[in-house]
Amino acid sequence: MRRALRGQGAARGIALGRVRVRLPQALAVEERRIEAEAVPDEILRLHRALDAARRELHGLRERLHGALAQEVGEFLDLHVMILDDPELLHGLDDLITTGRYSADYALKLQRDRLASVFEGMHDDYFRSRREDLDHVIGRVHAALHRRGDDGARGLSGEILVCDAIAPSELAELQSQGVVAVVAATGSPLSHSAILARSLHLPLLVGAAEALVHANDGDAMMVDAAAGEIVLEPDADDLQRYHRRQAQLGREQAQLSRLRRQPTRTTDGVDIRLYANAESREDVAEAHALGADGIGLYRTEFLFLQRRELPTEDEQFLAYRDLVLGMAGRVVTIRTLDLGADKADHTGLALRSESNPALGLRGVRLSLAHEGLFLTQLRAILRAAAYGPVRALVPMICCREEMVAVCALLEAARASLVADGLQAGDRVELGAMIEVPAAALALPDFVDLVDFVSVGTNDLVQYLLAVDRNHESLASLYTPRHPSVLRLLSELFAYGRRNGIPVAVCGEMAGEAENVPLLLALGLRDFSLHPATLLEVRRAVRECDLASLRRRVRSLLRAHDRAGIEAWLAR
Amino acid sequence: MRRALRGQGAARGIALGRVRVRLPQALAVEERRIEAEAVPDEILRLHRALDAARRELHGLRERLHGALAQEVGEFLDLHVMILDDPELLHGLDDLITTGRYSADYALKLQRDRLASVFEGMHDDYFRSRREDLDHVIGRVHAALHRRGDDGARGLSGEILVCDAIAPSELAELQSQGVVAVVAATGSPLSHSAILARSLHLPLLVGAAEALVHANDGDAMMVDAAAGEIVLEPDADDLQRYHRRQAQLGREQAQLSRLRRQPTRTTDGVDIRLYANAESREDVAEAHALGADGIGLYRTEFLFLQRRELPTEDEQFLAYRDLVLGMAGRVVTIRTLDLGADKADHTGLALRSESNPALGLRGVRLSLAHEGLFLTQLRAILRAAAYGPVRALVPMICCREEMVAVCALLEAARASLVADGLQAGDRVELGAMIEVPAAALALPDFVDLVDFVSVGTNDLVQYLLAVDRNHESLASLYTPRHPSVLRLLSELFAYGRRNGIPVAVCGEMAGEAENVPLLLALGLRDFSLHPATLLEVRRAVRECDLASLRRRVRSLLRAHDRAGIEAWLAR
Repeated sequence: MRRALRGQGAARGIALGRVRVRLPQALAVEERRIEAEAVPDEILRLHRALDAARRELHGLRERLHGALAQEVGEFLDLHVMILDDPELLHGLDDLITTGRYSADYALKLQRDRLASVFEGMHDDYFRSRREDLDHVIGRVHAALHRRGDDGARGLSGEILVCDAIAPSELAELQSQGVVAVVAATGSPLSHSAILARSLHLPLLVGAAEALVHANDGDAMMVDAAAGEIVLEPDADDLQRYHRRQAQLGREQAQLSRLRRQPTRTTDGVDIRLYANAESREDVAEAHALGADGIGLYRTEFLFLQRRELPTEDEQFLAYRDLVLGMAGRVVTIRTLDLGADKADHTGLALRSESNPALGLRGVRLSLAHEGLFLTQLRAILRAAAYGPVRALVPMICCREEMVAVCALLEAARASLVADGLQAGDRVELGAMIEVPAAALALPDFVDLVDFVSVGTNDLVQYLLAVDRNHESLASLYTPRHPSVLRLLSELFAYGRRNGIPVAVCGEMAGEAENVPLLLALGLRDFSLHPATLLEVRRAVRECDLASLRRRVRSLLRAHDRAGIEAWLAR
Repeated sequence: MRRALRGQGAARGIALGRVRVRLPQALAVEERRIEAEAVPDEILRLHRALDAARRELHGLRERLHGALAQEVGEFLDLHVMILDDPELLHGLDDLITTGRYSADYALKLQRDRLASVFEGMHDDYFRSRREDLDHVIGRVHAALHRRGDDGARGLSGEILVCDAIAPSELAELQSQGVVAVVAATGSPLSHSAILARSLHLPLLVGAAEALVHANDGDAMMVDAAAGEIVLEPDADDLQRYHRRQAQLGREQAQLSRLRRQPTRTTDGVDIRLYANAESREDVAEAHALGADGIGLYRTEFLFLQRRELPTEDEQFLAYRDLVLGMAGRVVTIRTLDLGADKADHTGLALRSESNPALGLRGVRLSLAHEGLFLTQLRAILRAAAYGPVRALVPMICCREEMVAVCALLEAARASLVADGLQAGDRVELGAMIEVPAAALALPDFVDLVDFVSVGTNDLVQYLLAVDRNHESLASLYTPRHPSVLRLLSELFAYGRRNGIPVAVCGEMAGEAENVPLLLALGLRDFSLHPATLLEVRRAVRECDLASLRRRVRSLLRAHDRAGIEAWLAR
């Protein structure tokens, strides 16, 4: 019988499929002892499962790219770390060898032992570590029991209805054929939600009712944007579904036609759309969509997932590929933006900061490791011999840092000359504006930069003193705060008056609904993930710049978020 | 033979004393088993030592007050938590009962077991937890072996030369007669340094040489402000020491004479000095020193160190004591400023935030627990019947929050009327300005406040995106950044134009060397810990306000810290 339920859309999209319910379950394994002669085989069996789990995690990690690699990768890295922990591995071998336990039971015992220590510690930090531990142990356990044909079975056309969904599961589920996920818990701001949006996998959260009412094999229809879930849809529902499907298809086709169109307002002003990129795929997509260049190339991927630092040649080749891939359009390489919140195995970043967001990161870390920074600057200068390159320095806070960066860039150039290596004639130098003090003090170091790029994600986080990943503060974290808009407006105006290009490279610039707002404030250079480039282009093409600019005064007079949103609605 | 060494001054002051060297040592205990019949006595012995350690920690905690209770108390709280951990306690009893180990050896075994788990986890966070664990275990071990006369022996007139010093040791050492501490490691920004300054206990850090050259019983002279350490001082040294001692004595006497003097510039402008307080002692001192009122009364102490929330009556009585203690001068009660970085046992604050400084704290937490907030507002309103009271709301970020606070204050007043309880006619409402977005958006909510108080500690931390407790970023964390000065200047000017008093209650206002700078920027209301009130008063009395105000333009034109300090030096 038809039943309509509600959820909160966390990744938009529609889907029609069979229900697959997954209930939360504890690792229930019975005690089993094995014979002495079976020990070697059991250890082999365990290590095959461990290897399989490791391969799965690495495979998932490699399939991530773009902002995702950064946002979600750290969970996977943590899981790999847990899996590689000698404490865990030795304990398991020992339980099988000495205790003659089956691999399954050894896994359970070791899990309980580690978890009990965490639990005794009375600290939520440890509890969340325990959840990670359970997740890893569960993965190994599944690998111990996987039959050869499991992969083939698949979940094709199924909608997973579950208690909670981990970021590390989503890509896997999608590749197995899952068409949507409905979770009883979670938030649209979680890492799972960010990942689902990037995978274009519809996700609804907060749908506890679905877990109660849905049964394996039921038909289910979801429209995540509308928060709609229908069990056993009727003829009307299906007709509505097909209409919606056709509409989304038309929109997609329409967007595709914008690939070769200019990003021009209705009154004929050209707006520049640069791409944020960190992988070969991003660069190819940016080029195909007609991006004006790469506005933010993240270099962290060269440093994460490894214990030794990348060599200068390794970096040079990656940057040169990027330059060649953009065929003459400008590429903006951001210098290393590592911090304690990234999964860094090189030992560069501190791992015990109380507030990683306010810690030793970005240019602070680079200036603390001058040799490393010089190597990166040399690689960037060498790549600049192949096409137009700009270097962008993250987390600039004061003039002193910019002075130090300029000196190092000169030193890098001099050392290349001394080594007889080719460097680009001119590498423009820019500062990321994400620290509020730097946003307010741009005139104090503007003589040292050729351009700036406003990282609104962090800038908003610091201006509002709200951790942007904090689920309970999601309603407080917004760029729609009068101070944010006024500061942006001043930065754009200052840039225009002084001939300094000012781009925005935060998420804010990649959301089509913000386009009228940003254009009104004076933004001309957007830098955004290729995934939303066409939507933003379409939005620009629907705007009349002159009339937006005329309305900016009333926007800047808004006292609160409601006032800003009322402006947007007009 | 005389030997001059160097250290870094972390808490100024001079001292002359005998050296007592303390080398770092591991907990080396030999395995010892006991007879079955000795088990009950051994368990009793262990628990007496545990109780003694617990008492020591609680005693230390109680002796802390003012900003210290907040800054250092969390370490002590963590140690108490470790000591009360059932995992630790049950393990110990079990090792003695079942394993027949001596209490000492059980302590070592249990320490090794817990520590090995931490070490296996490959994470600095766990390593630093292990150091806390070692500290606690060391304290219990010392208690196990304490003889009755240990306390009496004392360290009278001794200078402790050690590897490192923990905040929890300092008050204890001073009460035993230690006159100065020289540590091989540490930083002037550590919690130990903050505590030493408050205790007026001279502390030098980074003095590794001292640990190499000093021997028990050597004579040593230190001048922490000068970073000077002299082993076996000669006649010249001693003469210099006595001159310095006399000079410091004169300065102290001179300061004391300022108790009854007005805080007036040389050109006759009166400046208001309010006190930051959180204990009865602070309030008494503020009153004795002639403070213009209490500018910041912290209420967290009512909530920390306990599992149940304080009742309305309990809060009311504390606030009324405060009002009566200030005998008619205004008192400013800050509403609860709890967050995940405070040692909160009530379960109000989240304990697993990635960035507590950017988390659910201050007014965010109060608005998330309306009942709790109403109770506090009712208690404040009731205390206001006894004298002039202002309520100050921490971490205001946007107009929306201030609207919610005003509504709750009205609701609190209405509920008091309904209950037939007496409330003050008028309680002025103020916002702490510590979130940069609020500093920039004051005009958006100025209609809702009677005054504001700038919390420069946090404001600088967010503006610069630098954790103020981060030792490696100490050189970056400074209020002497052009953006900070300009923002303050704008706030003071805005307040003056609109008749809104703007105070500064961060550490910046309590440092005498900042007085010319703050006066030049336009500050008239200082709020500071009573400990430095007289020094600030003296500094104000040496300033010519008109000439400082004339020089403010050149101050606001400084591009960097060096420029600001050059201004100060002129």
